[in-house]
Amino acid sequence: MNLREYVSEVENWPKEGVQFKDITTIMDNGEAFGYAVDQIAKYAEDKDVDIIVGPEARGFIIGCPVAYRLGIGFAPVRKPNKLPRETISYEYDLEYGKNTLEIHKDAIKPGQRVLITDDLLATGGTIEAAIHLVEKLGGEVVGLAFLIELNYLNGRDKIKDYDFISLLEYNE
Amino acid sequence: MNLREYVSEVENWPKEGVQFKDITTIMDNGEAFGYAVDQIAKYAEDKDVDIIVGPEARGFIIGCPVAYRLGIGFAPVRKPNKLPRETISYEYDLEYGKNTLEIHKDAIKPGQRVLITDDLLATGGTIEAAIHLVEKLGGEVVGLAFLIELNYLNGRDKIKDYDFISLLEYNE
Repeated sequence: MNLREYVSEVENWPKEGVQFKDITTIMDNGEAFGYAVDQIAKYAEDKDVDIIVGPEARGFIIGCPVAYRLGIGFAPVRKPNKLPRETISYEYDLEYGKNTLEIHKDAIKPGQRVLITDDLLATGGTIEAAIHLVEKLGGEVVGLAFLIELNYLNGRDKIKDYDFISLLEYNE
Repeated sequence: MNLREYVSEVENWPKEGVQFKDITTIMDNGEAFGYAVDQIAKYAEDKDVDIIVGPEARGFIIGCPVAYRLGIGFAPVRKPNKLPRETISYEYDLEYGKNTLEIHKDAIKPGQRVLITDDLLATGGTIEAAIHLVEKLGGEVVGLAFLIELNYLNGRDKIKDYDFISLLEYNE
C-alpha cells in the first residue's frame, strides 16, 4: 500500500506558506489506517515494549490502536490541567513562546520499556518533551514511531540517540 | 473482568465538589484497555458500522482501537481550528458559556453507518453535538458507546432516540 496517497496536503495551514500534511484521510480509510497501525505494531514487536506513550491529541490516534494490537497499555502525555492525578511536567520552546506537557506520575513504572508514538516528526520539540517525561519516571525509551517525518525541519537531530521509524518522509 | 476496579476516582477535580472518574488507569493496563475495546467492538459488530466518530481527545482513545479492530476508519470531531480542511461546526451550551465542535465536511459520506464513541456520558452535550454533525453530513448514527455513564446527570435523556452502550454506570 502506498500510504502517501492517503495524506492530504493542505496549502497555507495553519499559516501562510506552510503546506500541512493532514492524516485524517489516512485515518478515515479502514485499509490505510489498519496498514499504518500494523507497520508500527510490527516495528514495536521486536522491542518487547511494555507500554505505549503518545502526546495529545494526534499521538492517541496511532498509539491507542498499536497498544491494543500488542495487548499492552497506553499512557497519554497531555497539556497542563488535563490529567486529574499527580503529574510531572516539562516546558519546552516553540518557534514563538513556550509549551508545557505533562504525564501522570504513576503512568510509567521504573524499568518499563516504552514506545512513544506521534503523528508527525517536525522540529522534534514535542517528542523531546515526551522522552524527557518518560525517562524522568524511570522508563526506558526503546523506540519512537511517527506516521510522517518532515525531513527539512531536522527533527531527527533531536532524537539521534534513539531508535525510530517514520512511515513517510517528506523532503519539502 | 471488573472494569470498575481500574477507574480512579479523583476528589474535587476539575473543581471543588466533583468526583472525577479517571480512565487513564484503564488505558495504561493492557488487559483492562483490551477488554474495554473488545466490549465496544462486540457491540459494534452487530450493527454493520462503516466508520467510527469520536470527539477529541478522549473519544480518540477508545474509538481508534475499535475502528482498527473492526477494520474500518475513524473520523475525529475536534475543537475549532484543529481540522485543516473544510469543516462544518455545531455550537452548544455548557454549564457556563458555549462550546463549538467541528468535523471535516468529507469525513462522512451520505448513508454511512456511524458509531460514535466517547469516554464519558455526563450531561450529553458533547455527544449531542457529535450526533448533529454526523447527521448533517448525511450519516446514520447506528450506535453510541461510552466507557462510563454518570446516571445522575441524565445524559441519556438527550440520546433517547439512539441505541447506546455504557460499559460502566455510576449513580453518584
